[in-house]
Amino acid sequence: MIKRELCFETQADEMTIAEAYDALFAEMESGKAGYYLLPESDMVSRIDAFIDTYDFDARGIRNIVVIGIGGSSLGTRAIDTLLRHTSSRNGRRLVFFENVDPLEISDNLADLRFEESFFIMISKSGSTIETTSHVKFLLAHFEVSIDSERFREHFAFITDADSPLDQFGKDAEVPVFHIPHNVGGRFSVLSAVGLLPLRLLGYDTRALLAGAGALKNSFFERKEDLLVLKAHHYAKHHKEVPINVLFSYGSSFRDFNAWYVQLWGESLGKKRSDGTHVGLTPVGIIGSIDQHSFLQLLIEGPRDKTVTMIKVDDFEKEIEIPDISLPHIEKTDYINGHTFQELLNAQCDATMESIMQQGISVDEIEMGRLDEYNVGYLIMYYELLTSLCGHFLGVNTYDQPGVELGKQILKEKFAR
Amino acid sequence: MIKRELCFETQADEMTIAEAYDALFAEMESGKAGYYLLPESDMVSRIDAFIDTYDFDARGIRNIVVIGIGGSSLGTRAIDTLLRHTSSRNGRRLVFFENVDPLEISDNLADLRFEESFFIMISKSGSTIETTSHVKFLLAHFEVSIDSERFREHFAFITDADSPLDQFGKDAEVPVFHIPHNVGGRFSVLSAVGLLPLRLLGYDTRALLAGAGALKNSFFERKEDLLVLKAHHYAKHHKEVPINVLFSYGSSFRDFNAWYVQLWGESLGKKRSDGTHVGLTPVGIIGSIDQHSFLQLLIEGPRDKTVTMIKVDDFEKEIEIPDISLPHIEKTDYINGHTFQELLNAQCDATMESIMQQGISVDEIEMGRLDEYNVGYLIMYYELLTSLCGHFLGVNTYDQPGVELGKQILKEKFAR
Repeated sequence: MIKRELCFETQADEMTIAEAYDALFAEMESGKAGYYLLPESDMVSRIDAFIDTYDFDARGIRNIVVIGIGGSSLGTRAIDTLLRHTSSRNGRRLVFFENVDPLEISDNLADLRFEESFFIMISKSGSTIETTSHVKFLLAHFEVSIDSERFREHFAFITDADSPLDQFGKDAEVPVFHIPHNVGGRFSVLSAVGLLPLRLLGYDTRALLAGAGALKNSFFERKEDLLVLKAHHYAKHHKEVPINVLFSYGSSFRDFNAWYVQLWGESLGKKRSDGTHVGLTPVGIIGSIDQHSFLQLLIEGPRDKTVTMIKVDDFEKEIEIPDISLPHIEKTDYINGHTFQELLNAQCDATMESIMQQGISVDEIEMGRLDEYNVGYLIMYYELLTSLCGHFLGVNTYDQPGVELGKQILKEKFAR
Repeated sequence: MIKRELCFETQADEMTIAEAYDALFAEMESGKAGYYLLPESDMVSRIDAFIDTYDFDARGIRNIVVIGIGGSSLGTRAIDTLLRHTSSRNGRRLVFFENVDPLEISDNLADLRFEESFFIMISKSGSTIETTSHVKFLLAHFEVSIDSERFREHFAFITDADSPLDQFGKDAEVPVFHIPHNVGGRFSVLSAVGLLPLRLLGYDTRALLAGAGALKNSFFERKEDLLVLKAHHYAKHHKEVPINVLFSYGSSFRDFNAWYVQLWGESLGKKRSDGTHVGLTPVGIIGSIDQHSFLQLLIEGPRDKTVTMIKVDDFEKEIEIPDISLPHIEKTDYINGHTFQELLNAQCDATMESIMQQGISVDEIEMGRLDEYNVGYLIMYYELLTSLCGHFLGVNTYDQPGVELGKQILKEKFAR
């Protein structure tokens, strides 16, 4: 289970809270945002049936290759990194063709045999330049024709219905899974975008959805005032406190932090209809490492940040610090006999206290264990929080018009 | 070589510029900051002699294990990730015992055989709780006694002269390399902290120092007004523009970004003597991936950010996007026949233009190739820029008093 606690005063009245519940309910009902319905979608059954039919084990598939960028890669990566130590995870390798960096592409090709690989091309629009370029390269590299059996047996597409990629897939008879039109890339991890690769890696995707669904239901039963109050606080103070730091204790949160940065930054950084620029800037850091990096800035720097601490009660890996006294360094012996998990979590608590003593707004998310249910819950926690902040900031949480200009300039460069 | 360009107006007069040169010169002369002298230190020769004597190849050392956190790990990791594709890099594995995360420790132990490993324990103070705990664990795990030949042959320490770790090393007859007292952890990558592991991985550490030294000399010959102007601009606008984004094009910059975040955040986030809190918040992002994440916030969000773009002219890895037309996705064919490097760099240029059109302060660092010389230059670029910002902000760039409170609270928790 997941416990949450706000360690700052909030000021939203009953009416404000009720309006926020209403606003998100209206988004769900009107179909403005489709992610609310993903926990109940039948995609998980469709994917199970697909995997049963294809029999990946018998076909010797050892590499799951995701070709996608941004919302098409960050969520899957986040969840796999959080859960890869669990017994759910099979031995398949997960490879991302993501950045158009020639060194990364070259690294990816090492030991990547086509016949042992299943390629999942993910693009919501169907024409993402990075993703299509990677696919073209892989087809040439492995000498695969798009009208061959090899292509049909080793590729699947995930895209919007009726996108160019969807049409290509239908023509080429490649399995295609759809992203609902009203689910944006950064909110899509609980759609086929995440469910297909994660299921192929062995994860219990039903438990993932159950965790997400549990929080969603609780929210729409209006039992999650804490979320509303937190979002209200962030939005109310967005001008003088524009930075929201996620301080996650555990190295396996690194990719989750990156997922959070996309979700938060892209959803909330917007030009309002009156022309004003608003937004909240996400920063993800890792404890205890970044106690030796970012913490000094938090403690003594400008009072422009909120902080959320995440900690895990039970990593299910007990490693003790032995009772060894190093000559001249005996003052560190207070930790002997404790586990690394105790040290890590005590550092989290101590750091949190030291930040609170500065009067900085801090809250805590405490996860029991890292498992599919809790991770699904955490994903939904941040998605709902993002929608709530968008509501209070008065922006459209679900578009991203600002990235279009760069794409146009890029095309013009090559047209010249 | 490295080219640099500022694409914004600066307003420092001759006097202000001269005073900044003087201030850093005084820091060097007085010994307040020791990093300025690292390019000329004889540590590189001492390390070469040590490696010749020990003959790591004959002893079958395949793993270089760095036990250290923060300033003791981030710099080495940054440089190795930037350069590991080069012909300098030998086949040894680099392992970090860094976070006290039981899952990370467990991962690290896979295939780690003691007799094939050389352990470098790095702690400036000599008593970092994470690092000493890791060492205690490794001694117990591999059943190594601190008065054995095995310990002396497989460990080296890097620490301040006369620290507890230095005294332990002398007693135990373990090789010890010193960090100059006036070189802080985050400025220490060009000391033994970085030079020893990087040399053991095959890198040309003399070229690394030559690159750093070239910029340093040019700076103290007062030929680097650009650096001074950039720092002056950042400091002058620190209140309304408190966030400095480093947008690096190439996945191999990920760890360099993390090094930058520590250097910048910990150096500049300070409580001034008059009690005011100042600082500049670093954010590191990667192109083109984060065009699909953070870019929307940059373009449409609050005008509270500067941006520095880094790009590499020549990754020395030519991979072409083949002339394949995917049915229904023909509109992406404009990129066919170009290389991934061309695409990546054109994305950098296009994104930079789109950011500049918003009136945001942007500058560019263009690296010819990723090699030791250029990386050394880049390291010194950011160290000097940090010192200059500290000068203009009126803070002590080299201390970190804010992290002490958390350490005290931690000890009290275990004393209870």
